[in-house]
Amino acid sequence: MDEAMEKRLPKPEELNAMTKESLAAAFAGESQAAEKYLVWADQADEEGYPNVAKLFRAISFAETRHARNHLRVMGGIGSTADNLAAAFGGESFEVDEMYPAYHGIAKLQGNNQAVRSINYALKSEVDHKGQYTDAREQVLAGKDIADQPVSVCLVCGHTVIGDVPDKCPYCAAGKELYRSF
Amino acid sequence: MDEAMEKRLPKPEELNAMTKESLAAAFAGESQAAEKYLVWADQADEEGYPNVAKLFRAISFAETRHARNHLRVMGGIGSTADNLAAAFGGESFEVDEMYPAYHGIAKLQGNNQAVRSINYALKSEVDHKGQYTDAREQVLAGKDIADQPVSVCLVCGHTVIGDVPDKCPYCAAGKELYRSF
Repeated sequence: MDEAMEKRLPKPEELNAMTKESLAAAFAGESQAAEKYLVWADQADEEGYPNVAKLFRAISFAETRHARNHLRVMGGIGSTADNLAAAFGGESFEVDEMYPAYHGIAKLQGNNQAVRSINYALKSEVDHKGQYTDAREQVLAGKDIADQPVSVCLVCGHTVIGDVPDKCPYCAAGKELYRSF
Repeated sequence: MDEAMEKRLPKPEELNAMTKESLAAAFAGESQAAEKYLVWADQADEEGYPNVAKLFRAISFAETRHARNHLRVMGGIGSTADNLAAAFGGESFEVDEMYPAYHGIAKLQGNNQAVRSINYALKSEVDHKGQYTDAREQVLAGKDIADQPVSVCLVCGHTVIGDVPDKCPYCAAGKELYRSF
């Protein structure tokens, strides 16, 4: 990281409980604002307001700076091995607890579009869990993972390492609807 | 939006309260995961794991797909005029209530790095409030805002339309630490 930048960034510190709670809530708020503004930027583009779209994207980026400052002060940036463990933990909670519960509620209430949105997420998170497990094993052995494309379905978030399937296994989108990293 | 994509996306629907609560919580979780993974990607790059960094970035993108699906089903994507009003509302809450309260707690508890992180955010959100107000006026008049660069300080999120200052007014970072959109 740039030294001039590092010097000005807020640093991790031992936080009191109420301050920690505040920063955690602020991190949640900033992360959600950042995400909404990106979606609303696309909407502004569709309505023919490219400069409003640009404003939304820039402010979204500003919110990510706030979010990462809060995360840093909370001590939420560890070593990569620790970050992979935390990522695995988060995905596991979603796969084992959160999404099955939400799926049950949405199904019970007959909210079918919600069921679809939850299903898309649940299926992808199962894959993420495995991908983070494999990555952590490599990092613990001091190695990077293999250099392969990682591709994501724009519709449902299906995430695949290596070749992109002709059709998304979760939402049947065509391969042209994947974005590769 | 691509028609093949539109066809497969979950649609907005009238939700029961518990399903709505579930999706709102899921949106919060996905947004925070997306943000953390981007930060952890940078950390992986710094530790010399570029492919782990790529995996984090791809999975972050997948989480944004889930987040926007949930937001869409909740009816959280309105017209641009409405989205700007919602954005203004969110920023106002942060400026008028949330950050002053959190600032008070962090100061009381002597958590100085938290105070700094909160101050950076609070100052930027005041600007965002004004920028969204101006944009909404234009959109309500059927016009886009002027085509000018929007620049964001990488350290503190200071957001400026037009010329970048030599020094960030909030954190004193040099102009080379701004990203322009």
